[in-house]
This record gives sequence, structure tokens and C-alpha cells, in this order.
Amino acid sequence: MNQNLIFTNDVEAAIGRLTASRDHNLTVVIADVNTARFAPSRENLIIVADGDAGKTLEAVCHVWDEMERLGVTRHSLVINLGGGMVCDLGGFAAATFKRGVRFINVPTTLLGAVDAAVGGKTGFNYHGLKNEIGAFAPASDVVISTRFLDTLPVEEIKSGYAEVIKHAMLSDRNELLRLLEHDFDAPIDHAAMLQRLRHSVQVKVDIVTRDPNEQGERKALNLGHTVGHALESLAMQRGKPVPHGYAVAWGLVTEAVLSHLLLKFPSEDVHRLGQFVRDNYRGFPFTCDDYDELLALMRHDKKSKDGEITCTLLAAIGDYRIDQTVGTDDVTAALDILRDLLGM
Amino acid sequence: MNQNLIFTNDVEAAIGRLTASRDHNLTVVIADVNTARFAPSRENLIIVADGDAGKTLEAVCHVWDEMERLGVTRHSLVINLGGGMVCDLGGFAAATFKRGVRFINVPTTLLGAVDAAVGGKTGFNYHGLKNEIGAFAPASDVVISTRFLDTLPVEEIKSGYAEVIKHAMLSDRNELLRLLEHDFDAPIDHAAMLQRLRHSVQVKVDIVTRDPNEQGERKALNLGHTVGHALESLAMQRGKPVPHGYAVAWGLVTEAVLSHLLLKFPSEDVHRLGQFVRDNYRGFPFTCDDYDELLALMRHDKKSKDGEITCTLLAAIGDYRIDQTVGTDDVTAALDILRDLLGM
Repeated sequence: MNQNLIFTNDVEAAIGRLTASRDHNLTVVIADVNTARFAPSRENLIIVADGDAGKTLEAVCHVWDEMERLGVTRHSLVINLGGGMVCDLGGFAAATFKRGVRFINVPTTLLGAVDAAVGGKTGFNYHGLKNEIGAFAPASDVVISTRFLDTLPVEEIKSGYAEVIKHAMLSDRNELLRLLEHDFDAPIDHAAMLQRLRHSVQVKVDIVTRDPNEQGERKALNLGHTVGHALESLAMQRGKPVPHGYAVAWGLVTEAVLSHLLLKFPSEDVHRLGQFVRDNYRGFPFTCDDYDELLALMRHDKKSKDGEITCTLLAAIGDYRIDQTVGTDDVTAALDILRDLLGM
Repeated sequence: MNQNLIFTNDVEAAIGRLTASRDHNLTVVIADVNTARFAPSRENLIIVADGDAGKTLEAVCHVWDEMERLGVTRHSLVINLGGGMVCDLGGFAAATFKRGVRFINVPTTLLGAVDAAVGGKTGFNYHGLKNEIGAFAPASDVVISTRFLDTLPVEEIKSGYAEVIKHAMLSDRNELLRLLEHDFDAPIDHAAMLQRLRHSVQVKVDIVTRDPNEQGERKALNLGHTVGHALESLAMQRGKPVPHGYAVAWGLVTEAVLSHLLLKFPSEDVHRLGQFVRDNYRGFPFTCDDYDELLALMRHDKKSKDGEITCTLLAAIGDYRIDQTVGTDDVTAALDILRDLLGM
């Protein structure tokens, strides 16, 4: 994994240097309907719908068609300017157009910055299954900033923040405790937030570098996501989508409970995390009637094997264990405790 | 590029060893309507249409849908059993399903064995443009044999043989002279042909290993293909498709002529090649009225840059030069000479 990461709040200058430093015949920008206004020009701009529901094969075809119309070649440069959806979709479209056009990611959301933009996973949803089709294809450069965060609704910030919490859970208890004191109602301290992004992204980079194609250790980054993806998929199937990071936050608590049940992860940390999620990630739309469907979705997860449910769990903050098989009863118990912790 | 190449005419035993040696939860076979009969079982068999015209996004979706229905996971194994089309299409579908399922190629045609099955290029045609969408994704293993060649029409054998000639032109004049003495009317000598495949595939492997993502030297393998692809695309657009290798054979002669005009490639070798192609690759369906359209297609080639036409040319057999810019007049002159050599 060879990605050039640039942490800066002078995004325009960084993009300018990147586009000037290489011999490209054409630069095109892929943005969604919200982020198109940040594009340096209306020319050579490809616009897609926003939101995960738009991350479809039809949208990929639209990008391919536009790339053809604009005359993109293997010597062109694609800039993905948007959240995780734009980075995932635009990255896949660029990585497969003529078998690969160089692309850079400029994430405009917190979630995009700490998750989708870095590490080389691209793809789209297929038949309602999240990222069912995709490729491992890293952006050559990623420009990470807090420059766009003030324009986002607080739900978006919270959504990305769940991944920041995940990275701290995988690496550093002191950082986690700092994160759990965050006040989403206060104005963003950009210098401090950029520092947190730097810390958070580094956790992901360290893991991905050791295992770019998810053969092993990279599964650590799946913490919270076996349960989280199932919650997100079910909400989407029911036509009541929830923000990705909310599902991840609920998944992190559930898998922390599982970690406590199976690996003696300290209950004190379960409760601190649960309290923060209860206070900040409201609106959990599930009941015990949904458990069977959720369990079926977990068995269908990309990382599952032989129909078993596997998670990444923690023996302690920073001490993760991949490929943990969990039983149906454990998951059911953990979901009960989650609902209790959330006050549902 | 880490591909395990197995040269054998006991294909069943080789597949048996490969499927037994790894811990897969499921093995599926992708075949076309002609090669499905070679599949070890009717179960877990995905069948696609045959021929390059079927290498479409719709066919890729069909394979993805079937993989989903059969329960393919990241721990499954996909066997592409067919010609270049099955290897290209099945490889792309496998490489992108859940961001990558391991696959092996078992080419059943000469063209598949020496070209598509080895080297990691996968993809499909889009809007009539050949391999417009794709990925660099190598099969983990390739089983190369002459086992299926007796079942093929002679046009198929000739089609693959053009790539064998190309590899010799890139590497070894003595091998080329041997190849140009071949009699397609004689029965296939399997031991001798397998030896030739071994030699031919090694030329490709040596080049691809040095440049897996076609940043430079791999373009050597494009010899004959700038012109060949244009001829093939135009024939397809007109609803009169020609075998890929026929287009390549005509492209090799045309680019040998260009090599003579621009790099003093020996005219003796142009004539030997031209004679063989004239004797064995009949049916050239173009006239000088088609030159403008052919030139436009060459400018649109994936390897072209800034609307110029670029080819790989030869100063001599084995002495290739990539990224050679050729002018419109040169191409026109070479196409005239091609038609003359072919007796059109």
C-alpha cells in the first residue's frame, strides 16, 4: 500500500500541487450533488447522487459513461471530491476504467477521511448488499482536512467519529478516553481535530500496510462492523436507512459486550463506551423481533465463513483478536444488553 | 505477478490437486456454452455465452448473480474453464466479487493459453470498446495444455497462433522461423505444441513480471495490437466480426511494415511474415475507404496519449521499442502495403 497522505487545511493548494506535479492529459473531478460546489471548475465535473443508497452499479456506469465522453485515458487524473460514497464509487470507477486511471481522494466528511479515503477499498452496493462488488485499489494521494466539516450536519460528524473511536479502541486507551469526552455541540477546533485525524488515520495505515488485501490482520478494522453492517443493511432494506457511523457505534458497543462475554474485556470500558453512544447516537430502530434477520445478515457478511458469524473482538483496548467465532446465543445476549445500555 | 503455471495434458489431475490443496468452502466453475461439457460436474457451474460479443456488463452481472445464488464467499475458489473470453470475464467477476475471490484459469483455446489466461488482465467490452472496463488481477494458478485443441475449428487454432508468432517476434528469430513453417492442415503434435506453448508463455511471463501494471515494458506485448484492435473493433461495429487472432495477424504485418519504414526492420522478415499471413489468415474485409475510421479507432486506443497513435515497433526480431508515435501518413502507407502483401 503506497499512498501519499497529506494533512492540511489548505486543500486548494494541495490539489494544485498534485495536479501540477504530474504529466496528465486531463483532470476530472467526481463529486456528489452537495460537494460539487467545492470543485475548482464546472468543467470536467462528474456529478453523482449523494448518500449510500446511490452507490449502485447504475451510478458506476454513469461515471464510466462520463469518463468516456470527457475523453479520460490512462494518462488522466481523477479527483474524488466527497464523502465515503464518492471515494468508494469514484475509486472503483477509476480503478476499472481502461483497467485503471490514477485517482486521488479528497474526503469532505469525517467518515471519508478516516475510513473510505485511505486503504484502497473501493466498490458499490449490489442487490442491497453493502460493497458486494469492489476492488482493492489505493488512491495515489489522499488530502485529509477538516476544511469541509463546518458545512456538515452534526449527524455526519458523529457518523465519522464512530470510526475515530474504533481506531482508538484498536490502539490507545488514553486516546479513547479523550475522544469520549468530546462535545458535539461545541464549535469544531480545527487544529485539534486535524491532529485527531492524523492519529486516527495512522492507526488504519499501520494495519493496512501490514495486510493490504485483508488476508488477516486487516480484519482488525472490522471491529464493530459485523454487527454494524447487519444493522445498517436491515435498516436500508426496510427503507429507513441510518447513518453508517450510527450503525458502527451500535456495533462497537455490541461487540464490546461480546468481547466482555468471551474475552473478559473490562466492563468499565463497555460502560464508558455505552454511555457515550447512548448520549450521542440516538434512534436505534430495532427490537428483539429483528434478531433472526440480523443474525442471517451477519452470517452473510463478506468476512464470514461456512455460515458462522465471525467478529474482531478485544481482550482489552489495543489488544484485538481477529476471526472470533461467536454463537447465536452470544449475539442475542449482546443485542439485549445493547438495547439496555441504549435505554431502548 | 505471482502466478503458478502448470504445463500438462493431464488437466483433470492438475485441477484435482489444486482444488484439494487449499481450504475452500466451495468451488464453482465458469464455462461457456461450448466448454461446459469439460466441467467436472453440472453442479456449481456458471455458464455464459461464447465469443467476444458476449463479453458484456450483462454477462458479468449474470456471473455475479450466480455467485451470490451459489453462496460464493471470499473463501471459495473459481475455475475459469474456457477461452480468452471466459478467462477475461470470469477473472473480472471473481476479482471484484466481495472485492476478490481466488480464481484459476484453465484455458481451452490456444489464444486463451498464450494470452488471456496469463498475466492478470481481466475485463469486458463496454459500448463496443474492447476491454474498456477491467482490472489487473492475476489468476493464482493457470493450467496450460493442448488437451482441448483437437476440438477446436482451425480458425480458432490460427487465431491463437498469431499471439504465439507475436511472442517469437519479441524474442527469438529462430523460433519465429520454426513457427512460420507450421502446417495447419496436419494433425496437432501435442508434445511439440505443448513445448511451443511453454516457450511462448515464458516470453509473456518474463515481460509481465518486470511490469505487471503496464507502466512501460509490458507495452511490448501490444505489438500488432494497435492496428489489430482497430481492425477488430471496426469489424465488430459493422456486424462482421473477425477472430481476434486474424486481426492480430494483420496488425503484426502492418506494424512490421511500420517498423521497416521507421526503424529499418529487415524487409526480408516483413515478407516472410506477410507470406505466412497471406497463406493462412484470409478474409481481410477492409478497403482504403475504411482508413479514416481505422485511424480514429487507433487514436482511441487505451495506450494512446493526446490523440496520437502509438505502437510497439521492432528494430529487429527481439529488439522492440515501446511508445513509438506513428503519423497518419505512415499508417496509411502501411495499410496499403498490408493489402498488397495480402493480395487484396
